[in-house]
Amino acid sequence: MATRNAFYAQSGGVTAVINASACGVIETARKRRKYIGRLYAGRNGILGALTEDLIDTSREPAAAIRALRYTPSGAFGSCRYKLKSFEQNPREYERLIEVFRAHDIGYFFYNGGGDSADTCLKVSRISGRMGYPIIAVHVPKTVDNDLPITDNCPGFGSVAKYVAVSTREASFDVASMAKTSTKVFVLEVMGRHAGWIAAAGGLASSKGMEIPIVILFPEIAFEKDRFLARVDELVKKHGYCSVVVSEGVKGPDGKFLSDQGLRDAFGHAQLGGVAPVVAGMLKQGLDLKYHWGVADYLQRAARHIASKTDVEQSYAVGKAAVELAVSGRNSVMPTVVRKSNRPYKWGVGVAPLDKVANVEKTMPRDFISGDGFGITAKCRAYLEPLIEGEDYPPYRGGLPAYVRLRNAPVRKKLGAFSL
Amino acid sequence: MATRNAFYAQSGGVTAVINASACGVIETARKRRKYIGRLYAGRNGILGALTEDLIDTSREPAAAIRALRYTPSGAFGSCRYKLKSFEQNPREYERLIEVFRAHDIGYFFYNGGGDSADTCLKVSRISGRMGYPIIAVHVPKTVDNDLPITDNCPGFGSVAKYVAVSTREASFDVASMAKTSTKVFVLEVMGRHAGWIAAAGGLASSKGMEIPIVILFPEIAFEKDRFLARVDELVKKHGYCSVVVSEGVKGPDGKFLSDQGLRDAFGHAQLGGVAPVVAGMLKQGLDLKYHWGVADYLQRAARHIASKTDVEQSYAVGKAAVELAVSGRNSVMPTVVRKSNRPYKWGVGVAPLDKVANVEKTMPRDFISGDGFGITAKCRAYLEPLIEGEDYPPYRGGLPAYVRLRNAPVRKKLGAFSL
Repeated sequence: MATRNAFYAQSGGVTAVINASACGVIETARKRRKYIGRLYAGRNGILGALTEDLIDTSREPAAAIRALRYTPSGAFGSCRYKLKSFEQNPREYERLIEVFRAHDIGYFFYNGGGDSADTCLKVSRISGRMGYPIIAVHVPKTVDNDLPITDNCPGFGSVAKYVAVSTREASFDVASMAKTSTKVFVLEVMGRHAGWIAAAGGLASSKGMEIPIVILFPEIAFEKDRFLARVDELVKKHGYCSVVVSEGVKGPDGKFLSDQGLRDAFGHAQLGGVAPVVAGMLKQGLDLKYHWGVADYLQRAARHIASKTDVEQSYAVGKAAVELAVSGRNSVMPTVVRKSNRPYKWGVGVAPLDKVANVEKTMPRDFISGDGFGITAKCRAYLEPLIEGEDYPPYRGGLPAYVRLRNAPVRKKLGAFSL
Repeated sequence: MATRNAFYAQSGGVTAVINASACGVIETARKRRKYIGRLYAGRNGILGALTEDLIDTSREPAAAIRALRYTPSGAFGSCRYKLKSFEQNPREYERLIEVFRAHDIGYFFYNGGGDSADTCLKVSRISGRMGYPIIAVHVPKTVDNDLPITDNCPGFGSVAKYVAVSTREASFDVASMAKTSTKVFVLEVMGRHAGWIAAAGGLASSKGMEIPIVILFPEIAFEKDRFLARVDELVKKHGYCSVVVSEGVKGPDGKFLSDQGLRDAFGHAQLGGVAPVVAGMLKQGLDLKYHWGVADYLQRAARHIASKTDVEQSYAVGKAAVELAVSGRNSVMPTVVRKSNRPYKWGVGVAPLDKVANVEKTMPRDFISGDGFGITAKCRAYLEPLIEGEDYPPYRGGLPAYVRLRNAPVRKKLGAFSL
């Protein structure tokens, strides 16, 4: 097998550990010189390939690549862009081959979630369909934890840890204030379709450290009266409670709870979060003093409190992707395989990409308690190992010393391409 | 001097490090048995004294007290309750003396901000005014950093670190997404009257790690057009930017920007945050895709990312309070004194309480850049040492192993008291 160059890109919403996967890909590629010549990164995901906007990662010193392991976000830029089917837009595929050929790219690594797996699958079929030899391997990443086959998704464990830690800390705060002031703290977390992230809020309460928490899942239709009754019960018993609400919670009418038709004084529609909506109900329905927060990007960027397990798995799938590729495996994705819960043991497996792309794994109903407001022991057993361990970045002047790569461009060989 | 008991309580909004001050008070009191017999904590601040709801801290093992150093929030419960003047409500003072006398309390330590300093000052005057001998020392604490005389306030450094770290992390995120998606991230932070906390967002950008950030201070009247022009300029130059907005930002009319007269579909008033208001302006005025977050309690409870400097100073003022008290100093507050910036050196001083109570220190105008959207070099030199150093709590099962005290009540000797 001749030495060929490789392409790596990051896609979709970024995470605290997607760069750890990049680190795994690049460090492993550097050890496989027999197969992989240069590793080019796409600037802003697949757009980098389409527009021939390539970054020469060989220009980055080893220390900078090592620092990717503890740097959040996408070091090469990400994108939200889905390739159309070959029939709908053959021009895009022809262009990809043109760019791959110009730069002798024989390996394609795409780091993303479900939509990105679809892009990677399409690229993997170029080989058979259009006669250009390329091996495409998907590197899994998504805070949503909704990819199938893999036990969990790199990126999720760190969000889960952030939400669990933050919920515990804010609950301590509201417990202190409850006697004369705030009695409920509402935290809004990510999760449009699946409640994995909200579920992690439940970990804040553990044996010997019980905390009254109500979780609102997108999987459970929101019923205001039942919710108010539950909060009322907990506040009467404990003096306070915390609410962790998924951004994707819907009412019985199927509409997002955050979509309350808010208007400002001029009648303009305002997009609010779901946390203030829920908090408003507590005020109106129970006359409880509340505080609310919206974690938004903070939760998925919080490398400072990343899960060590998650960092290690993110690196491992990056490394495995390169090893699969150089052994000739096309159209696959490395997965995390759980071997045991206590002690937690895991390994890396492999899944065919056509079984991954466009398939969404939702939360099993038996992970959510009967009343719909909490997590079950089964869910806890699944989640706990994923937030295990701390993996602190180095600090300089009180701030994490994250790396910014120089991202030197590869000289273009082709003409421009309009998307 | 005879051995007498002491009273300690926590007041106002809690912080990530108020318990570190409690730790300093209790550990030091335990070493001063010659002066201090038992140290009683008030359950929920001064309410614990008024209702004779006392906690016997001598029942807590040394390890639990040590753990307070890394546990956020108020371990004994806090309160928002201001004593009226003696003339307005002599009954309260008579009751305090009754409780103090019943439990032989000769030392009073009150841990809080400006309002609490006023309570402590009033108690310190009981001695002269009502003939009951007591020494009252205030232990400074406030995330608002608005107490006078002290160089900075214990509690502030950790919020500042949280905001700086979070702004850096979220900025990395939005920079990755900006090409095809989100271009601006808006983070709402605390600060009703003073912009100290928002200013800390400016630390996210530093030499060699420049990040485009717009800060909105409560001290600067918000002008929409100037704000939009500034964001537009930064996004055009860098492709993205972050906005850190203080909850207390007001428009030229002096009204809170968060107070937009929001109504839901039924016409009910909704209390939103200022972050969605600002984000909405970016969408309407510049058609920029945005994300927004509201840190709320997370910022002041985030012991997991506390500033080591802040933890040490919080402990030190607790310790100093006891030492001042046993040396007979009534009606004072230990302060943090800055001795040099580089290297940062500090010590503990002392301020008379009547110069502290009800005085608010605002941000000097020369800490805010000319255009009103950033911090000056002078502000940076002031802030930087305060976020220096990490002081991680121990973890168990992926979560910080914070302590919950047993908080055993002291047997009551008096009848009930209605507030």
